Amino acid sequence: MKNLKGAALLGQSGGPTSVINASAAGVFLEALKHEEITEVYGAIHGIKGILNEDFYDMKQEDPKELERLKYTPSSAIGSVRYKLKDVEKDPTDYLKLLEVFKKYNIRYFFYNGGNDSMDTCLKISKFMAKSGWDCNVVGVPKTIDNDLAGIDHSPGFASAAKYVATSTMELYLDGTVYDHQQVVIVEVMGRNAGWLTAASALATVGGVKPDLIYLPELPFDVEKFYTQVGDLLKTGKSVFAVVSEGIKTKEGKYIPELESEIAKDAFGHANLGGTASILAEHVKERFGVKVRAIEFSLLQRAAAHVASNTDIEEAFMVGKLAVQAAVNGVSDKFVGIVRKSSNPYEAEFPLLPLEVVANAERKVPLEWILPDGKGLTQDFINYALPLIQGETPLEKVNGLPRFAQLKKIRVVKK
Amino acid sequence: MKNLKGAALLGQSGGPTSVINASAAGVFLEALKHEEITEVYGAIHGIKGILNEDFYDMKQEDPKELERLKYTPSSAIGSVRYKLKDVEKDPTDYLKLLEVFKKYNIRYFFYNGGNDSMDTCLKISKFMAKSGWDCNVVGVPKTIDNDLAGIDHSPGFASAAKYVATSTMELYLDGTVYDHQQVVIVEVMGRNAGWLTAASALATVGGVKPDLIYLPELPFDVEKFYTQVGDLLKTGKSVFAVVSEGIKTKEGKYIPELESEIAKDAFGHANLGGTASILAEHVKERFGVKVRAIEFSLLQRAAAHVASNTDIEEAFMVGKLAVQAAVNGVSDKFVGIVRKSSNPYEAEFPLLPLEVVANAERKVPLEWILPDGKGLTQDFINYALPLIQGETPLEKVNGLPRFAQLKKIRVVKK
Repeated sequence: MKNLKGAALLGQSGGPTSVINASAAGVFLEALKHEEITEVYGAIHGIKGILNEDFYDMKQEDPKELERLKYTPSSAIGSVRYKLKDVEKDPTDYLKLLEVFKKYNIRYFFYNGGNDSMDTCLKISKFMAKSGWDCNVVGVPKTIDNDLAGIDHSPGFASAAKYVATSTMELYLDGTVYDHQQVVIVEVMGRNAGWLTAASALATVGGVKPDLIYLPELPFDVEKFYTQVGDLLKTGKSVFAVVSEGIKTKEGKYIPELESEIAKDAFGHANLGGTASILAEHVKERFGVKVRAIEFSLLQRAAAHVASNTDIEEAFMVGKLAVQAAVNGVSDKFVGIVRKSSNPYEAEFPLLPLEVVANAERKVPLEWILPDGKGLTQDFINYALPLIQGETPLEKVNGLPRFAQLKKIRVVKK
Repeated sequence: MKNLKGAALLGQSGGPTSVINASAAGVFLEALKHEEITEVYGAIHGIKGILNEDFYDMKQEDPKELERLKYTPSSAIGSVRYKLKDVEKDPTDYLKLLEVFKKYNIRYFFYNGGNDSMDTCLKISKFMAKSGWDCNVVGVPKTIDNDLAGIDHSPGFASAAKYVATSTMELYLDGTVYDHQQVVIVEVMGRNAGWLTAASALATVGGVKPDLIYLPELPFDVEKFYTQVGDLLKTGKSVFAVVSEGIKTKEGKYIPELESEIAKDAFGHANLGGTASILAEHVKERFGVKVRAIEFSLLQRAAAHVASNTDIEEAFMVGKLAVQAAVNGVSDKFVGIVRKSSNPYEAEFPLLPLEVVANAERKVPLEWILPDGKGLTQDFINYALPLIQGETPLEKVNGLPRFAQLKKIRVVKK
């Protein structure tokens, strides 16, 4: 489907990352270069923006601000969590999307998100093709969770990993500073895949070794954990543990679920805390030691000031290449990342079928995980370390980040 | 007391900061230059290290690593929370300190800490003078809380403020990204003084305005807060609030205390959460909205990667000047910071009596605080903004901070 003339539309979906806007910048800046592309739209809150015909007109933005988007966290055009139903069950949304695509002559559609979003991309692509509306659909991957299948790593992961590793180094130094013992438990995002929790092991390269690192890939034995903490406390030192929010017992219970059951039995009242704070409270009760539970929370996916420049440039690249591919007639694909070499680090960006990544989930290989929370193997370090290289060139004004300031001019509804 | 010949000893005390080690670097590197100073010791865990005759020999460290201390968070020689009793009540510690000072010929003593530590400094100084042991004692101020009296600001505050302002900008962008409404409540350190919470208002300079900012200087009306959040939610937008860990009701109750009373009444079981998580849970119950409670916790005092270079250089300076003063015969003083001009920013470092700062507490002027959590005045911005200028020259290796790696060689006990 070459030489389509019409509008390009980008939507962002799912949890933002520090560099999802770098992909948006790649899409927008590249789209603005092609004469086949008559308009450049940003869907406000992803699919919902399309269903509501709610778009920003990216042509009216200052290209300098679009450049700054590379270094600006969060989804500048707004994100959404919205799963399209199967078209057989309910075609309503699809028919509306088709109507909007026709009304605004959308011939290039890009969707920037994780595995759910790649599934959305695929569904839309198939429906447009079936309906006879020529439109090239290309997926742009992102996720801090690094769980996208079929590619070496996901844009967004490395910046979050750099944040986790850097903060682990800093917190470790702080948390072990007193003469009295302290147990610090840090909680990292990643419900099913432990890539980001594993990134705390990169701190060892900087000379700081967390005592315990627990990923969701292996069952978490709560009693064993307390025993381990107790044994470490006997050595007289402070203890530093990193746990994934997604650790589960071998019965498949998350820690807050487990606690909720215990608490309900005892008091009819569930504990508000997350995984780290529940574990920390029990450690405090058992060992009478000072504890600190620290959740990286949204910080780990928003800390653009410590983003990896490798990640920024790759995120930009996948956006840019998505547009080039679409203009060259490619559809039903996403831009992948394949590693050619780790030392020196080198990657390629092939176009891969959306089916590869849609709804699949890639976890940390079990052979990279040392048993009993002892950390990660050198293979993991060799994998992850090249990705966090390079500092963000984010401009500072008044000592603060100068993030993109978009005009956000809405397209007049037709 | 000029021309004393003997050892110099530095102790660090209280909660660390991103730049307390910059002051240590100032003390050590300057002390190594003076021939009056025969040995340079670091007390391991402050006063406790002295009582236990437990010192690091700083002369054996690589000067390059001591330079790197400028950019390394936490207390490299270990900190402590230990309050000396009044000498009239119990002279035991004082007599031991005197014995150790004599045994190791300690003629220059520097204590790096907050108002408690300056009080410790004063007590030791008085006791040594009374006991006839010639020793010049000079205080080196630090605290992220910025509550030291008699000086313009405290080393450590500005770096934490820069972290708070930067993270507020990033979190705000992330927290307001979805089409559904969300309430983010961020909790900042500062039990009695709201300086650091106020620093979130610096984000406005970067184009991001938190909806509500609550400092501990004014009573916190819990019901009014919920009403405000409800009113903001009615506008259709997400809500971003920043609260100090130290906010109290007009009856003087901290939020976790209040919650504990409510919870005990209802279930005999207290909530584990901190201020932000308790408020967030109630907001969720009342408005059925998605909430996020985020505690900056130790991150705000350890995030050396985003330290203010103005702060780093000032922290180094107060350490260096403390040594120069002591060698010139000064005692019973601390090195203060007085602002000469805000634009361009210029400061002086006078020697001030320890009595000025010992046990006193300086809060945010009430006239800088807008009522009902509406933020801070331009006067506060004008005060704080110059302090967060300049980026840390912290070296990166492998994409990670290259913090100081000390040999930490212990002095053989005499």
